[in-house]
Amino acid sequence: MVGFDADDTLWKSEDYYRAAEAEFRRIVGAHVDLDDVGDRLYAVEKRNLALFGYGVKGMTLSMVEAAIDITEGRIPAADIHRIVSMAKDLLRHPVELLPGVAEAVENIASRHDIVLITKGDLFHQEAKVRESGLSRWFHRIEIVSEKDVPTYARLLEEFGVAPAEFVMIGNSLRSDIAPLLELGAWGVHIPYHVTWAHEAEADVDAAHPRLRVAQAAGDLPALVESIASEAASP
Amino acid sequence: MVGFDADDTLWKSEDYYRAAEAEFRRIVGAHVDLDDVGDRLYAVEKRNLALFGYGVKGMTLSMVEAAIDITEGRIPAADIHRIVSMAKDLLRHPVELLPGVAEAVENIASRHDIVLITKGDLFHQEAKVRESGLSRWFHRIEIVSEKDVPTYARLLEEFGVAPAEFVMIGNSLRSDIAPLLELGAWGVHIPYHVTWAHEAEADVDAAHPRLRVAQAAGDLPALVESIASEAASP
Repeated sequence: MVGFDADDTLWKSEDYYRAAEAEFRRIVGAHVDLDDVGDRLYAVEKRNLALFGYGVKGMTLSMVEAAIDITEGRIPAADIHRIVSMAKDLLRHPVELLPGVAEAVENIASRHDIVLITKGDLFHQEAKVRESGLSRWFHRIEIVSEKDVPTYARLLEEFGVAPAEFVMIGNSLRSDIAPLLELGAWGVHIPYHVTWAHEAEADVDAAHPRLRVAQAAGDLPALVESIASEAASP
Repeated sequence: MVGFDADDTLWKSEDYYRAAEAEFRRIVGAHVDLDDVGDRLYAVEKRNLALFGYGVKGMTLSMVEAAIDITEGRIPAADIHRIVSMAKDLLRHPVELLPGVAEAVENIASRHDIVLITKGDLFHQEAKVRESGLSRWFHRIEIVSEKDVPTYARLLEEFGVAPAEFVMIGNSLRSDIAPLLELGAWGVHIPYHVTWAHEAEADVDAAHPRLRVAQAAGDLPALVESIASEAASP
């Protein structure tokens, strides 16, 4: 069985967050003369993560809070309104599949059961899956609040698949690769050109025997087949 | 198999939302002389539901937007900060089980497979389930974005249970009862003393043969048993 991450693996995501963050810096920067607006936003986001979880809505509430904190209450309501409108634009943004993804997913689905495992906001992720046109290929679509070892262990048990027979494909070493290697499953890392600081915090041995790296979605079918034959005759 | 709704069925929820709405009316009411602040908030919430989904974070973003709209931008940042703080208090609020729920759930779990089916924010609902102390009784915990006929049909298929052998217990006619009756399953309505306007919009025949009404959690075990024997010999 093959699992796919969604954001920045199947479709663009972090770019939109980066653009929103840049817009936030412009909005807040009009009221204060500071170099560390982005760092202060990240500090608020990180502190709120345990309460808000991942996703656009939590990020936006953190932005509203950070904008008021950073400007010491001087930010006008109209600028806060711009921040909320930015969130709505993010939630409404059309899904843009990454190059080669549609072909790679269809190819792999023709030979293996595939599942989608993504974290974040349930409502937004479901909307993106629907809009992507890819949902018909996936046996199961799992939206989880945290991608850690206990979560993957529970999912593999629900799927009825042994770790040694499961491959996870994703762009985040922290969320898509490290927990799977720890469980005894396989990982295919497909780096994206930008990674949120939080997702970059991981410690993975680049030479791990059950880790592969893809440069592009076009590499995925061959990598999955090589893992399948290695897993069949270890 | 028996399904339980969570908010206002197992534990208090709508009361906190009502209190937050009253606080919102006080905050905004200090800046405008209007009678319909609550109605205008509900209009914004309802318009944003398709984008935000259910839950505290979406409600709070709607409150921020409504506060700015209603005051025509005159609301100061400090008051918007109070709205965001209110959201954090709501998310951190301890779970208060309703009277008799712990005993009823344990009793029913001793005789049937039970599952929890709730809608709303994944992260917040998971935290509440963990904190409730009830999670060990449930075979599955399903957090969904909408409780409608297609969602319940998919879940019953995943559970491998026929509609005629499934009972759903909940406080919302719209979300917990009407779709199940339509599917051929059973419903036990356990009304709560307050219901969000959105959840009250339902058309259910009070005399439906597969509908029962519980006055309190203590009634649930006997109602479930009477349904079980009726379902076994229809």
